[in-house]
Amino acid sequence: MTAGQRAPTPRDELATWRRLQQLADAPERPGSAAAHSLTACGLTLDLSGQRLAPPILDALLALARECDLPGQLRRLFEGAPVNASEHRAALHTRLRALDADGLPQDPEVAAHFRGLENLAERWRQRRLTGFAGQPLQHLVNIGIGGSDLGPRLVCAALAPERDSRFVANMDPEDFHTQCDGLDPGRTLFIVCSKSFGTAETLYNLEQARQWLLAAGCPESRLPHHLLAVTANAERARAAGFDDEHILTFQDWVGGRYSLWSSIGASIALTLGMDGFRALLRGAQAMDQHVLQTPPEHNLAALLGLTDVWNFSFRHCHSLAVLPYAQRLALLPMHLQQLMMESTGKRADQQGRLLGYHTGAVVWGAAGTTGQHSFHQLLHQGSQRVSCDFILPLAPGAPHPARPLSELDRLGHRQLVAHCLAQMQALRQGEEKAALRRRLEAEGRAGDELEALLPQLEVPGRRLFNLLTLPRLDAWHLGALLALYEHRVYCASVLWGINAFDQWGVELGKRISSELLPWLEPGHPERAEQAPEELRTVIAAWHRANAPQGDPTAS
Amino acid sequence: MTAGQRAPTPRDELATWRRLQQLADAPERPGSAAAHSLTACGLTLDLSGQRLAPPILDALLALARECDLPGQLRRLFEGAPVNASEHRAALHTRLRALDADGLPQDPEVAAHFRGLENLAERWRQRRLTGFAGQPLQHLVNIGIGGSDLGPRLVCAALAPERDSRFVANMDPEDFHTQCDGLDPGRTLFIVCSKSFGTAETLYNLEQARQWLLAAGCPESRLPHHLLAVTANAERARAAGFDDEHILTFQDWVGGRYSLWSSIGASIALTLGMDGFRALLRGAQAMDQHVLQTPPEHNLAALLGLTDVWNFSFRHCHSLAVLPYAQRLALLPMHLQQLMMESTGKRADQQGRLLGYHTGAVVWGAAGTTGQHSFHQLLHQGSQRVSCDFILPLAPGAPHPARPLSELDRLGHRQLVAHCLAQMQALRQGEEKAALRRRLEAEGRAGDELEALLPQLEVPGRRLFNLLTLPRLDAWHLGALLALYEHRVYCASVLWGINAFDQWGVELGKRISSELLPWLEPGHPERAEQAPEELRTVIAAWHRANAPQGDPTAS
Repeated sequence: MTAGQRAPTPRDELATWRRLQQLADAPERPGSAAAHSLTACGLTLDLSGQRLAPPILDALLALARECDLPGQLRRLFEGAPVNASEHRAALHTRLRALDADGLPQDPEVAAHFRGLENLAERWRQRRLTGFAGQPLQHLVNIGIGGSDLGPRLVCAALAPERDSRFVANMDPEDFHTQCDGLDPGRTLFIVCSKSFGTAETLYNLEQARQWLLAAGCPESRLPHHLLAVTANAERARAAGFDDEHILTFQDWVGGRYSLWSSIGASIALTLGMDGFRALLRGAQAMDQHVLQTPPEHNLAALLGLTDVWNFSFRHCHSLAVLPYAQRLALLPMHLQQLMMESTGKRADQQGRLLGYHTGAVVWGAAGTTGQHSFHQLLHQGSQRVSCDFILPLAPGAPHPARPLSELDRLGHRQLVAHCLAQMQALRQGEEKAALRRRLEAEGRAGDELEALLPQLEVPGRRLFNLLTLPRLDAWHLGALLALYEHRVYCASVLWGINAFDQWGVELGKRISSELLPWLEPGHPERAEQAPEELRTVIAAWHRANAPQGDPTAS
Repeated sequence: MTAGQRAPTPRDELATWRRLQQLADAPERPGSAAAHSLTACGLTLDLSGQRLAPPILDALLALARECDLPGQLRRLFEGAPVNASEHRAALHTRLRALDADGLPQDPEVAAHFRGLENLAERWRQRRLTGFAGQPLQHLVNIGIGGSDLGPRLVCAALAPERDSRFVANMDPEDFHTQCDGLDPGRTLFIVCSKSFGTAETLYNLEQARQWLLAAGCPESRLPHHLLAVTANAERARAAGFDDEHILTFQDWVGGRYSLWSSIGASIALTLGMDGFRALLRGAQAMDQHVLQTPPEHNLAALLGLTDVWNFSFRHCHSLAVLPYAQRLALLPMHLQQLMMESTGKRADQQGRLLGYHTGAVVWGAAGTTGQHSFHQLLHQGSQRVSCDFILPLAPGAPHPARPLSELDRLGHRQLVAHCLAQMQALRQGEEKAALRRRLEAEGRAGDELEALLPQLEVPGRRLFNLLTLPRLDAWHLGALLALYEHRVYCASVLWGINAFDQWGVELGKRISSELLPWLEPGHPERAEQAPEELRTVIAAWHRANAPQGDPTAS
């Protein structure tokens, strides 16, 4: 909030919010699972698993009006400083606003885009060569958070056969596990960091340099293998990159919204520019749907409203993302960052501590694997979880060299049946009388039967969304990812929070550098000077890392 | 409960439970973060991040006594039917009860163990050969749930360089992504299913057969490439396996506790028998600690008590598992199954619906990667999450051919600093006055400063455990995994629930086969006969999979 501006009423003092609270406190009405599905950009959202009785849906839509959700969406697209605490716009939609020729309409974005296009073209033509003159063919992305999760997901979803690698962690095991076995002379590292000050990324850049040098790359040829992607070209230059090996993007691109920018370089190289453009086009189509559609028919608004209802009113504390597609196995991790970093806030934009829950824990795994793991809790647990089932209806584009077999088609058909069956089980449960008959038929009776019945009962009436895609391709994946971005923004507007900052992550970074002196190898006495609550563990660290120590001692 | 046995008092009517409820309802006392750490089997648990004031810890230990936790642990180890709803013992501890010679003490377990040892020895010596006579060298595990997650985790943690593959999902993409690029003539499939009736596993077995046949393997030589691991040898025989290619294990091994049994074949082949034995030995040591130690010094009991306090009394709904070790990146997924399938229950063993929360959602990721993703919510979110930090204090055993570099050591030291810093930030937050001074120094003032302060404040007083290992090796990993198994059992005793059944997963399987007829390719009219709430999506499926359809239509 700028000084002098009148502070909006706290959300939980709005008339519509109070109405929702009354509805939440009232006993739930039965029979509210009416069919409720909408389609946009080829994606169909079925909300019937949320059991939103008409008065609840009406009250949620009234909240959207009272919060001026359509106006706030316009502000986002127009470049208003929606990230107020950092005085910044959040213009990721501009990254995918392509003209009829498939070029970004914004001139600055177009300039970055052409840099990427040029790189991707040289990569495709194998004109990028390594220190010994061989064409580069292995791609390793170095980055963490938004410089990792989005590109990693898209590459795994659309071209797993290319085997592009991603190194993120400060743990040196990550670099070695990903790079062992690659031919250094043929490896290109794309080093992504918005600030070019990310500790993990600079560390792994150094690992890459040492790995190349150890393989015989002359110092002077290191630049052949290293490409920087950053919004801070100056710092990349200071780290040894020349302008020819730096791709840039704008400061208003938030990390978790950056896969559409030059940070998507590994996507562009892995899929080719056509694939990257199709991804952007799908997102662009979703942007237009979200911007132009009133809340009652707007997929992002309805999902955001449902999140607010579930997490603030309905005692639901987590969202399970369940893609029924192995290629989307990394989707929960990407959405974890997108949703939890954006909505894990406890104060509104006016600085008032909130009296209601905001963003929930986001987790999940690809179906059917989760069915053999955590679905037990979804069906019979005591926690209220809302599930997002995400289902591409046709089998994925197969490996270019391998047509789909009948067996592949059968597997996919069974996969679809499992997805729908899980929804049915969550929705309906099993009728108690039927369960009793089944147990009696198995010979159970008396006290044993009575004790078993509640342990076996699946109650149903659990919460879920279903999102279907005709198939998993770049265009529909782009639309899907953009939908989640807008869902998050809609929820943040309804909660009155800033979806684009992440102040909570700074403190740990600062403390980390303060702790390093106590972890000075060969100086176990430093443990005594460390903060009291860490002395035991720091002393243990010195023992475990003592060079003269018996390596078999525990 | 057996008929005639007197039902135990419901947990929430116990005097100790009521006492805990009073403590939970009282305002929290400050200054209760006293140092509280214990060591067993080389693992140190620091509980200080749970801020258990002495009266709370006393009341929790009183609950353990009232529930006869030590007696219930003895029942588990003695083979009492602790899985009452299935009339079964849960004797996974017997799988790792080795004698001085490193052989299982139980004769039947020993017989299975020798079968595995024999196989691992022939694998090591490259005496297993494929259809064209080449030695087998690629290992692909086919299994799902417990037949996948545990072995997958252990292989990734201890021998990522061996590149053993794991196929689990019904989605055919999983098989193809894992197996593309392997040489069929050199590939061994280990097909794991306790019942040998698991749909996904039988499906992927068929994929393996077709893949081998397509590569020129004669039908008669398929058995060279396929090994079954099951507790139901008869069904494996019916599926075409001869006894020579079947490894068995006992019916009392639960899926999520089965990595210690023949289901660990991929572990034994990947690590060698010495590594597998060290894993078992570590678990065995932890078993003895847990069985023999009174609750107040028992790591598993204290963790279980803390879970009960957090999830049933403290409005905490999830547990974030944060291993600061890239090699443990799959640990959250393994624990997700172990904990959520075991404690996602809503009725006690007497069939009474519970009035309190039991098992929570388990999720997480390897640090430091999560710091750039969801840690924002941990530090500043509105949800209460408890975190398990898991930290090996020394860098992992490196690739056999590559000694640790100075850069590797530096990275690991920074990794440790980050782990401890995250704990400090969660514990202490940032003093508000210091934050104000920092913002003033940056030139912020007036209304803007006041609005920013709460948005930037990191409040601290969040919940966490720290578990340190001297280093990540087979022995300590075995101890760690056994500790979590016992923690789950302890919590289940305190909650009065069955940790060893999973009735909630059956209904979805049944419904799935009922739905297949509506998904008959080429019969779009079937959609009209499907359950009403599925007609739209089933019709869309038929459109998306129509053979004559325009492949570019959405």
